[in-house]
Amino acid sequence: MKLVECVPNFSEGRRPEVIAAIRAAAEEVPGVYVLDQHADSAHNRSVLTFAGRAPDVAAAAFRCVARAAELIDLNRHRGEHPRMGATDVLPFVPLGETTMAECVDLAGQIGRRIGEELGIPVYLYYEAATRPERRWLPNIRRGEYEAIKEEIGRLPERQPDSGPTNLGPAGATAVGARPVLVAFNVNLASPDLALARSIARAVRESSGGLPAVQARGMATEDSRVVQVSMNLLDFRVTPLHIVFERVRELAAARGVEVAASEVVGLLPTEALTMTAAHYYGLRHFGPAAVLEDRLLEALLDRTQSPTSPLPAAKGDAGDC
Amino acid sequence: MKLVECVPNFSEGRRPEVIAAIRAAAEEVPGVYVLDQHADSAHNRSVLTFAGRAPDVAAAAFRCVARAAELIDLNRHRGEHPRMGATDVLPFVPLGETTMAECVDLAGQIGRRIGEELGIPVYLYYEAATRPERRWLPNIRRGEYEAIKEEIGRLPERQPDSGPTNLGPAGATAVGARPVLVAFNVNLASPDLALARSIARAVRESSGGLPAVQARGMATEDSRVVQVSMNLLDFRVTPLHIVFERVRELAAARGVEVAASEVVGLLPTEALTMTAAHYYGLRHFGPAAVLEDRLLEALLDRTQSPTSPLPAAKGDAGDC
Repeated sequence: MKLVECVPNFSEGRRPEVIAAIRAAAEEVPGVYVLDQHADSAHNRSVLTFAGRAPDVAAAAFRCVARAAELIDLNRHRGEHPRMGATDVLPFVPLGETTMAECVDLAGQIGRRIGEELGIPVYLYYEAATRPERRWLPNIRRGEYEAIKEEIGRLPERQPDSGPTNLGPAGATAVGARPVLVAFNVNLASPDLALARSIARAVRESSGGLPAVQARGMATEDSRVVQVSMNLLDFRVTPLHIVFERVRELAAARGVEVAASEVVGLLPTEALTMTAAHYYGLRHFGPAAVLEDRLLEALLDRTQSPTSPLPAAKGDAGDC
Repeated sequence: MKLVECVPNFSEGRRPEVIAAIRAAAEEVPGVYVLDQHADSAHNRSVLTFAGRAPDVAAAAFRCVARAAELIDLNRHRGEHPRMGATDVLPFVPLGETTMAECVDLAGQIGRRIGEELGIPVYLYYEAATRPERRWLPNIRRGEYEAIKEEIGRLPERQPDSGPTNLGPAGATAVGARPVLVAFNVNLASPDLALARSIARAVRESSGGLPAVQARGMATEDSRVVQVSMNLLDFRVTPLHIVFERVRELAAARGVEVAASEVVGLLPTEALTMTAAHYYGLRHFGPAAVLEDRLLEALLDRTQSPTSPLPAAKGDAGDC
């Protein structure tokens, strides 16, 4: 099953008609399925999640970005979340048998179209980054829309990967490729925030813990419970059971039990088959053994999309 | 997501053209998706698995039974597996939010059509059974085609739920409703077949173990490994983790470790979300939190089938 997920973030979390218009731009593409949409008023930001075959998802992504550019003016945008563009980030995520390399190609191709056809500066990020410092969004977005507008024409480090070296009301967009992100929180039956923080330090990559894991210790609404809040940036590199068992052991060493866990957002089937394979000792066990995944594959075969691949941009190997 | 799975068993495992023709009868119904098909030459039997919305699955099931009746003659059928009809068993299985009651209705409705329109005697079984002794297939199939042919006209206990009281070359069909069946085997790192057998006795319902669990101890091809081979007749009643942990503990009490496990056939997503919920302490965690299930739901919404509900048979409340 070769699918791509796209999770664009738009700088609009308050006007429902704008949020709906952007969603419609994606949904109007046959073969594209919207899985989730949520808006945050304080952040003045919304996140759309859709999936389908690569050419369909690419077409929908381009349409969303064009629609957002028509409807959102960064000069008038205020919100708590850092932002630099009407479409702020546009990540492509490989699902099933799609490879990361295919999503990197897709990001490059769509990034070029956004730059050339919409006149929006594009920075390629994460796996699609063309410079090491652009792997991480905060580096690209430093100073937000206002600083980039002022600096893009004169600072070499602000040179976009495609598009003009000046910023219009639609701002700039980060286009990238990344694995599925799993937000996984483990609650500890303890009021000890220092414990949660020390376990977070022990498991996160940045302080020498597990690869592709971000973590921080937090209080919760229940004063008897603290939380280790984590992002698994690549659950194939560090699976849920490795993270969970590490947190559990570190807490147990201090006499504290796990109270509960939660997954925020959607989890891919493969994260569940890896969990079952670990705890039951199942071998060669993956999504192909899951009834609903077989059914999804059968439906996708039956609904072969009429959308043709995107026309390759100039100089593009264009093989996604 | 309201879906129904159908897993008919046909008394033909040798003639590929017959097996293909039966499959085609199901696949020609729009909105019906074949998930699996396998044939066993020694048993001279094949199993087809398809799924879709209730009316589409019902239409496909009826078409399969009609096609099998045209192509299979029980008077000429020989195989190792007990059998009584061209379509030997026809179970409907609720998936997602479909209820067992809906599948019981479906079995009754299709059973009546098979009896009345095709002239094939039908016995309703498992959750659809109209008499306690018909819950279990072996009771219905006792003596196989040959005994039923001889007895159906004169023994009250052979009176079918619908159809004539005589047997043609298509034999009789058991139509029923049952939960998803999970075939789950746990291998023990021990050559001790008696241990596997005693653990099987301890976990199976029939000897006072776990509800809805069938189990037996078996040797494997590896003489250092024995197996507890199980059917979970309803994984919502006794989930995989309960069975696995019980087997693991009983083996550990004798100093034996689990070597590996295997799931035979397809596992529903819900069995995996229950597994993850147990080991991680996830709350309110089900298939709606799984990315591929959301995508499947979106595709099903987009591919609303044009098939109209089955015309209700005479005297039928017909609400599936």
